[in-house]
Amino acid sequence: MRSVFWEAGSLHLIDQRRLPASLELKSYTRSADAASAIRDMVVRGAPAIGVTAAFGLALAARESGAGGRDDLIHDLQAAGTMLKAARPTAVNLGWAIDRILERARAYAGTSDEVRAYVLEQAQLMADEDVEINRRMAQYGAGLIGDGDTIIHHCNTGALAAVDWGTALGAIRMAHEAGKRVHVLVDETRPRLQGARLTAWELEQYRIPYEIITDGMAGHFLRRGEVQEVMFGADRLASNGDVANKIGTYMLALAARDNDVPAYAVVPTSSIDFSLSDGSLIPIEERDPAEVLEIEVAGQRSAPEHARARNPAFDITPGRLISAIVTENGIVRPPYVENLPAVRPA
Amino acid sequence: MRSVFWEAGSLHLIDQRRLPASLELKSYTRSADAASAIRDMVVRGAPAIGVTAAFGLALAARESGAGGRDDLIHDLQAAGTMLKAARPTAVNLGWAIDRILERARAYAGTSDEVRAYVLEQAQLMADEDVEINRRMAQYGAGLIGDGDTIIHHCNTGALAAVDWGTALGAIRMAHEAGKRVHVLVDETRPRLQGARLTAWELEQYRIPYEIITDGMAGHFLRRGEVQEVMFGADRLASNGDVANKIGTYMLALAARDNDVPAYAVVPTSSIDFSLSDGSLIPIEERDPAEVLEIEVAGQRSAPEHARARNPAFDITPGRLISAIVTENGIVRPPYVENLPAVRPA
Repeated sequence: MRSVFWEAGSLHLIDQRRLPASLELKSYTRSADAASAIRDMVVRGAPAIGVTAAFGLALAARESGAGGRDDLIHDLQAAGTMLKAARPTAVNLGWAIDRILERARAYAGTSDEVRAYVLEQAQLMADEDVEINRRMAQYGAGLIGDGDTIIHHCNTGALAAVDWGTALGAIRMAHEAGKRVHVLVDETRPRLQGARLTAWELEQYRIPYEIITDGMAGHFLRRGEVQEVMFGADRLASNGDVANKIGTYMLALAARDNDVPAYAVVPTSSIDFSLSDGSLIPIEERDPAEVLEIEVAGQRSAPEHARARNPAFDITPGRLISAIVTENGIVRPPYVENLPAVRPA
Repeated sequence: MRSVFWEAGSLHLIDQRRLPASLELKSYTRSADAASAIRDMVVRGAPAIGVTAAFGLALAARESGAGGRDDLIHDLQAAGTMLKAARPTAVNLGWAIDRILERARAYAGTSDEVRAYVLEQAQLMADEDVEINRRMAQYGAGLIGDGDTIIHHCNTGALAAVDWGTALGAIRMAHEAGKRVHVLVDETRPRLQGARLTAWELEQYRIPYEIITDGMAGHFLRRGEVQEVMFGADRLASNGDVANKIGTYMLALAARDNDVPAYAVVPTSSIDFSLSDGSLIPIEERDPAEVLEIEVAGQRSAPEHARARNPAFDITPGRLISAIVTENGIVRPPYVENLPAVRPA
């Protein structure tokens, strides 16, 4: 099952907030609800929210009462703006919406033909995403040796994309190729995508793993127990600076301090060639409740009136990234010079 | 109220597992129960468990049916061995027990006089601990500027000692001296000593703070929002390598990468001059359930059969420590040369 798919006139999403306790599907028939699903993280992961937004445009096309083609394009643009605002950091969201809008504008046809075309393009993007992820996974798997232990941050698996995923896709591909791999799963506070989603996926694939707290990664790296560190990215700048789930920067620092390679596995759609460096990437600040609501044995951890900060992403400087794995090949530093080679035509 | 104290023939401890939800005292009349309290982390923090063990010896002295002085010393040594085994990493535990045993052996008196003497020595150690902590706090406060933001890891406050504490004592002392300070509190997974205990203490002192997840520290350091990083230590090697709560190493790396000083605030009783470097410090591995049992909205995060690792401490190399603050002054690198200057006579 894909984590994002269209069936019987509706967008369907695996509700990632409910895993691993239960595997539940949610279906959406309105574009505003698709935007809420992205904002509330029913669906998360840069590739997955890009494709969700594409289907969101298909919903918007159907909602629009526009009789004329131009009015429909106008309504689609408004829906695109709303969908883009759902989450600011991942560039795939904007990339997916812009691509669909651009193609819709260029498509000669009646409003109903444009409606059908937008859905067709969203479906094409979903199918392409699976293929892109598979190619990335193959490149990434080549970096993993038989018997390796890999530290993985957040969730970058099939749930984070349409299928396969990015960094976790590479680990899965290595496993399916017969390599023995062991994964130390960063639990990834505050939303625990590692402990919840990555652990759940690894169980499906029967890949051995152990959950660690984010602060433990350095300990295992220093002990020489780890051969690779792998993560995805929500947006890359053209100098190789990586915006990814909060905690990635400290993990990459610990990898570098121990001469262990840190790989960012990302589709080229996550590379924002318009940005010279990562300081220009907007960092989403989420509800502090995500930090404060953690419980042990039903008891909330923080004092009643405690305050918290909650940046959802951080910037890892390109100098700490050993290689960037894309669907068009593996890129090594210097990134300013070498990233353009994988840029799609 | 002290976090560890003797009253009416019993050892009393604040139950640190129950904070911040409720402030509860537990009392102990048997040495084996004092050891369990250390193991189960009713009491934690290197200075606090040292003093708890000292009172544990006083309980052992009372329990012993020995009529002769030598038999009593023998029983005390057995109790000391049991108490030392409660937690392996913090050296204060062994230091406190060895000091009491050594003095008891040197003390000329009947078995009942030795019993009274052991309690007296434990009480003396508790009183000295407060004074040592106050002096450390004064030295440490001098490193904090007016208006500074400090990242603090784990809990190192009054709860971690008899009173005042180490790193948090320094922050409190700066605040009481009229400096405006702001604390970013590492929640400190897996046991959340930051979110639970440090946040609770800071509320008592009316020091402004915000809780962050451990993986966020690098983000705030890179943004230039932080002037100092401060933590305690469970054991120092003679080269300045610091064993401290898991996550300290990654925090110190992030501080160094941003030229922010990282200070270890430690009593000289935590310095193990017998060890040339940190690789010789035993690292306690605790129950994986501490990692796995985390819940959000009553729902356990990890899959049912998930496994986890749980090293309770890590080693931060001395090269990442900007200064070591002790009750006998501030020590700068090179530590092999400079630490002996603060060694007690």
